[in-house]
Amino acid sequence: MSDDRLKHYRESIDNIDAALVFMLAERFKITQAVGRYKAETGLPAADPGREVRQIERLRALANDANLDADFTEKFLRFIIEEVIRHHEGMQTG
Amino acid sequence: MSDDRLKHYRESIDNIDAALVFMLAERFKITQAVGRYKAETGLPAADPGREVRQIERLRALANDANLDADFTEKFLRFIIEEVIRHHEGMQTG
Repeated sequence: MSDDRLKHYRESIDNIDAALVFMLAERFKITQAVGRYKAETGLPAADPGREVRQIERLRALANDANLDADFTEKFLRFIIEEVIRHHEGMQTG
Repeated sequence: MSDDRLKHYRESIDNIDAALVFMLAERFKITQAVGRYKAETGLPAADPGREVRQIERLRALANDANLDADFTEKFLRFIIEEVIRHHEGMQTG
């Protein structure tokens, strides 16, 4: 690609994507620790009230950031589904 | 929630989620600029080779971060779908 302006944009997108990947890796480290801790202490795995509060908070943050709130909610649900998949793996593996 | 350790974990998750939201907002600002730039200069909207390279790069970064590569690819496709939705909105709106 010889277009300098496009190259410049794409470098920024690639930087952000790398940051997102490492941020997600850190997030899953914490949710895995939460899963272990809940299993050890006998706390229930699911907490529907917590999820509702997370979604409300992220929708408000999305508005601040001029990001589509519905997309942001879908994004959080997408990540939470992966967290549940991890926890199921912990129980069976 | 009176459990201090769980509260501590959840504060970290909430911090990371806020960072993810603001990072995503920045990413969409750039992809919207790319969309406008491509429209102005007559560059094609889609670039399949670019997408293949992005996926390969993110899968390699996922391995470095001990993150599931398939999940990371799904994550990138999820974001790219939203970018396409934005670009379609630009063309019709």
